[in-house]
Amino acid sequence: MRYPSGIRRQSIKQRSVAKTNISYGNRGMSLEEDIEQTNQYYLDMNQAIIHKKPTPIQIVKVHYPKRSAAVITEGYFQAKSTTDFNGLYRSKHIDFEAKETKNKTTFPLANIHEHQFKHMQSIVAHGGICFFIIRFTVLDETYYVPAEIVLLYWNEMKDGGRKSIPYKVIVDKGYVIPFKYQARVDYLKIVDQLYF
Amino acid sequence: MRYPSGIRRQSIKQRSVAKTNISYGNRGMSLEEDIEQTNQYYLDMNQAIIHKKPTPIQIVKVHYPKRSAAVITEGYFQAKSTTDFNGLYRSKHIDFEAKETKNKTTFPLANIHEHQFKHMQSIVAHGGICFFIIRFTVLDETYYVPAEIVLLYWNEMKDGGRKSIPYKVIVDKGYVIPFKYQARVDYLKIVDQLYF
Repeated sequence: MRYPSGIRRQSIKQRSVAKTNISYGNRGMSLEEDIEQTNQYYLDMNQAIIHKKPTPIQIVKVHYPKRSAAVITEGYFQAKSTTDFNGLYRSKHIDFEAKETKNKTTFPLANIHEHQFKHMQSIVAHGGICFFIIRFTVLDETYYVPAEIVLLYWNEMKDGGRKSIPYKVIVDKGYVIPFKYQARVDYLKIVDQLYF
Repeated sequence: MRYPSGIRRQSIKQRSVAKTNISYGNRGMSLEEDIEQTNQYYLDMNQAIIHKKPTPIQIVKVHYPKRSAAVITEGYFQAKSTTDFNGLYRSKHIDFEAKETKNKTTFPLANIHEHQFKHMQSIVAHGGICFFIIRFTVLDETYYVPAEIVLLYWNEMKDGGRKSIPYKVIVDKGYVIPFKYQARVDYLKIVDQLYF
């Protein structure tokens, strides 16, 4: 994770690299950065209002210096109980989680918390649009995977099944998100196909 | 603001105070605490999935001690660019801001940031349910005020108009949120009336 989250100066350079050599397009930019840039583009174009939720931090000590901003001098990262991103698109509630893996053959379920799965299960049940954006960094492939698919594997894992989703399943049941110049991870294109 | 956000031990005591003397029901509990308790109740009852967004913090220094959790040793509070609360209810996107005032005759617009108004304007335009929960602490009255009303006054203020909304307007155009034992600020009752 990088703080403060947002678009780095470097992104300009990365963009031109992306233009001249498409297969290296994502090198150096994390999935999270690409999504934040995409969300900003959606916001600028008035297409959707989707934001990253800040990481919750437990604040223990705050120092208030005279004539300047309060400084947190002791704080701890807390686990998220929801997904990373949510918002509004075409009157629908959007909720998703973004994950990268260096693995080439499977997507491991280990680094997703139980409360996040439960949250996603609720979102689906209450009529929200819920999905994962999964990037296989080595393959440089990014997929939109409906929450239902991941939840299926998660439930199987809890019953003693495998602890990951095979790459092949993600290719079959997911949707490739193409790399684009302006919306680097144009996931709303997939939402359009699936819901509108 | 209190950290970490959530329900304090004290809330149990407050609850019993509320039971025996209804007019002092909200004393000692902030509006934010009441809403967080209400959201937890909605979540437990599987009625809605609404969460408070953590305050964004710019992290400058992190210390990684051996065998214990990472400690943030320098961090700063950042301004929110959205509202405090959002989520999903009956397939609809919910987005709202909660504000308390000690004022008895007006609700001042000064402590709401321009980007928050713009965010709310977008939420309305994109089909979300958007409102303010405003508490007049001295009067111990809590109102659901549709975003449209507040945006109207905000636009007038930008054109040189008054910098607050008269209490009378909030009483006329808003909806009293009754104090309840379990859902202390049962705002979804008003959402039901207005949208379903």
